[in-house]
Amino acid sequence: MRYSYLGPAGTFTEAALLQMPGAETAERVPAASVLSALAMVQDDEADVAVVPIENSVEGGVTATLDAVSVAHNLHITAETLVPITFVLASADPMPMEQVRSIATHSHGWAQVRRWAEATVPHAEFVPASSTAAAAHGLTRDPAIADAAVCAPLVAAQLGLHVLAREIEDVPGAVTRFVMAAKPGPVPVMTGADKTTVMIPLPEDHPGGLMEILEHFATNGVNICRIESRPTGFGMGDYFFSMDLEGHIAEARIADALAGIHRISPRIRFLGSYPRADNKSQQVGPEVSEAAFTSAQRWIESLRG
Amino acid sequence: MRYSYLGPAGTFTEAALLQMPGAETAERVPAASVLSALAMVQDDEADVAVVPIENSVEGGVTATLDAVSVAHNLHITAETLVPITFVLASADPMPMEQVRSIATHSHGWAQVRRWAEATVPHAEFVPASSTAAAAHGLTRDPAIADAAVCAPLVAAQLGLHVLAREIEDVPGAVTRFVMAAKPGPVPVMTGADKTTVMIPLPEDHPGGLMEILEHFATNGVNICRIESRPTGFGMGDYFFSMDLEGHIAEARIADALAGIHRISPRIRFLGSYPRADNKSQQVGPEVSEAAFTSAQRWIESLRG
Amino acid sequence: MRYSYLGPAGTFTEAALLQMPGAETAERVPAASVLSALAMVQDDEADVAVVPIENSVEGGVTATLDAVSVAHNLHITAETLVPITFVLASADPMPMEQVRSIATHSHGWAQVRRWAEATVPHAEFVPASSTAAAAHGLTRDPAIADAAVCAPLVAAQLGLHVLAREIEDVPGAVTRFVMAAKPGPVPVMTGADKTTVMIPLPEDHPGGLMEILEHFATNGVNICRIESRPTGFGMGDYFFSMDLEGHIAEARIADALAGIHRISPRIRFLGSYPRADNKSQQVGPEVSEAAFTSAQRWIESLRG
Amino acid sequence: MRYSYLGPAGTFTEAALLQMPGAETAERVPAASVLSALAMVQDDEADVAVVPIENSVEGGVTATLDAVSVAHNLHITAETLVPITFVLASADPMPMEQVRSIATHSHGWAQVRRWAEATVPHAEFVPASSTAAAAHGLTRDPAIADAAVCAPLVAAQLGLHVLAREIEDVPGAVTRFVMAAKPGPVPVMTGADKTTVMIPLPEDHPGGLMEILEHFATNGVNICRIESRPTGFGMGDYFFSMDLEGHIAEARIADALAGIHRISPRIRFLGSYPRADNKSQQVGPEVSEAAFTSAQRWIESLRG
Repeated sequence: MRYSYLGPAGTFTEAALLQMPGAETAERVPAASVLSALAMVQDDEADVAVVPIENSVEGGVTATLDAVSVAHNLHITAETLVPITFVLASADPMPMEQVRSIATHSHGWAQVRRWAEATVPHAEFVPASSTAAAAHGLTRDPAIADAAVCAPLVAAQLGLHVLAREIEDVPGAVTRFVMAAKPGPVPVMTGADKTTVMIPLPEDHPGGLMEILEHFATNGVNICRIESRPTGFGMGDYFFSMDLEGHIAEARIADALAGIHRISPRIRFLGSYPRADNKSQQVGPEVSEAAFTSAQRWIESLRG
Repeated sequence: MRYSYLGPAGTFTEAALLQMPGAETAERVPAASVLSALAMVQDDEADVAVVPIENSVEGGVTATLDAVSVAHNLHITAETLVPITFVLASADPMPMEQVRSIATHSHGWAQVRRWAEATVPHAEFVPASSTAAAAHGLTRDPAIADAAVCAPLVAAQLGLHVLAREIEDVPGAVTRFVMAAKPGPVPVMTGADKTTVMIPLPEDHPGGLMEILEHFATNGVNICRIESRPTGFGMGDYFFSMDLEGHIAEARIADALAGIHRISPRIRFLGSYPRADNKSQQVGPEVSEAAFTSAQRWIESLRG
Repeated sequence: MRYSYLGPAGTFTEAALLQMPGAETAERVPAASVLSALAMVQDDEADVAVVPIENSVEGGVTATLDAVSVAHNLHITAETLVPITFVLASADPMPMEQVRSIATHSHGWAQVRRWAEATVPHAEFVPASSTAAAAHGLTRDPAIADAAVCAPLVAAQLGLHVLAREIEDVPGAVTRFVMAAKPGPVPVMTGADKTTVMIPLPEDHPGGLMEILEHFATNGVNICRIESRPTGFGMGDYFFSMDLEGHIAEARIADALAGIHRISPRIRFLGSYPRADNKSQQVGPEVSEAAFTSAQRWIESLRG
Repeated sequence: MRYSYLGPAGTFTEAALLQMPGAETAERVPAASVLSALAMVQDDEADVAVVPIENSVEGGVTATLDAVSVAHNLHITAETLVPITFVLASADPMPMEQVRSIATHSHGWAQVRRWAEATVPHAEFVPASSTAAAAHGLTRDPAIADAAVCAPLVAAQLGLHVLAREIEDVPGAVTRFVMAAKPGPVPVMTGADKTTVMIPLPEDHPGGLMEILEHFATNGVNICRIESRPTGFGMGDYFFSMDLEGHIAEARIADALAGIHRISPRIRFLGSYPRADNKSQQVGPEVSEAAFTSAQRWIESLRG
């Protein structure tokens, strides 16, 4: 297996990749951007791309994934959660009070700013293109900064000296990462699954979101993420990117999506895959497989 | 064919029956009540019962039909509309101003009251058990009343003298009648059909009507009649009696009813049959048979 | 107080009237029909009309009330429930097995039919215009029938001999009656109230019922009765007759009706009044008066 | 007026700021991050912050704005759209084919990648913390890169030599920017307005999105953006960030938000302001101010 991921080496994205079974020994190829990581799969330079979703400190955004998945016809095959925790690391041991400049990505800086103001108030922020790049910078050129705010992984990989751990202002944050691959067999249902779809707003239905949601409501499907996005083909055209609780193998997901396909035929299925949080799906009796089967039999009996 | 109908002979119900093809020469058996007419079908004393629905001047009510259809498992196979128009008729010719008493059903009286007050202000109302019974009464016992308000049919059948025609205060009223028979093949779809169902309110869902209607909304099914009724098994238990535009052979009707079966499994199908008004069904592209088929194929392609 | 009611004396409607405080000594005027009873109020011949609603054995129907209330601008001021129980009564004591003919209204007959077939199988049904009329008939003309199926009230009023009590096939039935009067101050809120409205289907909204119900859903208003009816002004035009749980003095009822007024400005308010079953209204925190007040204050604070 | 903005000088964000009336002569303070720009307003170091929203090439994300607006109680007072177009610029004139390294932000690189592969296939990508930083880098240290991909504004500000214009792969993209300030009088209604809100998902309502949307549906409010976000206080807790078409001064917006306040009292109002696209609001007659006023008067007349 060859994995592409949002690099450089040592990012939270590589940490996410390393959580996958067998990843330790797999080929891992850093990419300069989410787009590049995904394009490598499209171009057969990798089998699976690992990219961040939501809240990322490294700038990966759902929008990118949406656009690329559709353009390149990639499916999501897995997701994983990585605790976002930062260390302050330097190339060589040094007293904290001597730290005068700190390199990191601006998003990372934002997440440790209160800690930094309280602990190293005189340190200047030096922007880097990623938290991992900041760490690599320390080893390449001592002039860049005294220390870096980065992931524990890259500090370990580079043998940096850790001056402080868990310096994030809001502890407990996690970032979600997904694996994207060319379409193949859908991962088997586990009972704790998600399904990701893109649904263009029906052209002539201004109140179309409500209409879409009714299909989920009548089939007992919970939405765990929803985002509207401009399609990029002119103002006023939107699609919705959504994660649903459930698997395409379930009648309730299949019926909801079939109903939406009727009002928005350009709907895109981007994958059914196990949930990272492993939270078992609670399904009411009225949307159980048995209820769907029983209803179908009743209709057939009426039609004779 | 043997028809039972809400009698006596000459009611609007018999007029409805006579609108059915071949009814002129069929056996027609009057019944004392809607319940009796329906029971005759159940007991194999008739093949089809004709009973009034809505606005009837003769007291037939949907509630009765609902209850009996369920108890006796009858299906509706046809409906017909009869214009409700009244005549003032007497046994023998007489001047209008000499009419001092008028027999009819209280509902019939209500519908000609303004005409009567203006035209025969001194005439007294004599209640009868039906408008047809009032007409029959004139021929049996001259002491009952000078004249009767009744359907043109019974006046013609009995050779009564018609003193005035179209005396109803609000012209243009029609009453709907249905044919009920034991379950058999569903009448073929015509493109202008109705489907009648009874849907118990889901027990633990106080706001359940909305939930039921969402299944019709998502499948493009219009409701042309809805009535809530107590089930009679205790306070607070309701069912809904509904007429839908469409036929059980259509995917949109079948899918809507299958969805409702999941939340209210005791739903009863009471028949799909041609509409009396012959109004063609307008079906949007998103609920056409083609849309349902295309959506189903898409789901199958995803599941592989 | 002068009450008009659906007569003759001794009907279940008079029994309903007698349940009202002070009714025993009030003037009680029987009317020949629901229409007449209501018209007497309109014409100042009575202050309040008492008429049956739903399931009535005497033919009162919601449709009539709807039509008249609107035409005559009457409001409902109270409702009451009367247990429907029948007696078999004769003018003079006689052995049950000698009863050969039984007078009653056809709806009443339908409700004791199984008892009659089992107990007096040879007795013939003689239709009467009401169960009370059947009882009165016995005292006027012995030739009409040997016995009558009627309400206990009329048997007692006329001093009839009761041959059998509680002969109804389905025990426990109740009929609802309402009091209708000219508009005046709305009865004060009790916490267990109903509100009756008529809502024309918005002309250009085929799926308009859903739209109406959303206003009730968003304001936490339960519907305890709904019936669609043709307006009588041409095919395809409907209105909905509804009873709601709650009182116009409550914000949730007022806001729901105000919202519906915007989409169907011809909505008619037919009264807020105490529920006959005295069932206290359960109101969720999100639709409490406090929640409405708090929301309103928030909006005002935003608008500055 | 003092403006803080996402710097450094020459970003698309500064271009957005320069579109505001009077901005040319106002004090403009670059900030290192969206968070910093917003914090400057909070700390009275600036009056208004200008930050990017959606699709940004400079990494500004709605999530940041949401979080900060709530934490710091900032309101949005205006929005503006900036066409996203890139130039390839160098410190000194040089032939295009000699460009061997190109500095820019990774998002910017992603947007010109196809152009670069076709035009300067041998050029290496050098990541920078922003497109403007890349341009500034050229003037500070020739060793960093031969050229930069950046906004026309910064190339002009720094007197760079423009080698190619409009090199973006997808022409016509725009990015939205908003102005955020401490709460004050809401900008007056123009008839083409937006309102931004944050709505926490009601805790005990898993299908709560539908419930929220019903308030918009019944009040005729269109949603032009919706995004669900974790609140950050534990898994499973979401809020929705939404832009609505309309102004808090309108009854339809006020009533919708008041209704949602009842089910989600922690709702946050983040501002009503003119739309950048100046698209006039189409309001149906049933949600016009006149309809709300008329409905309110009707309710008052009923309550007496």
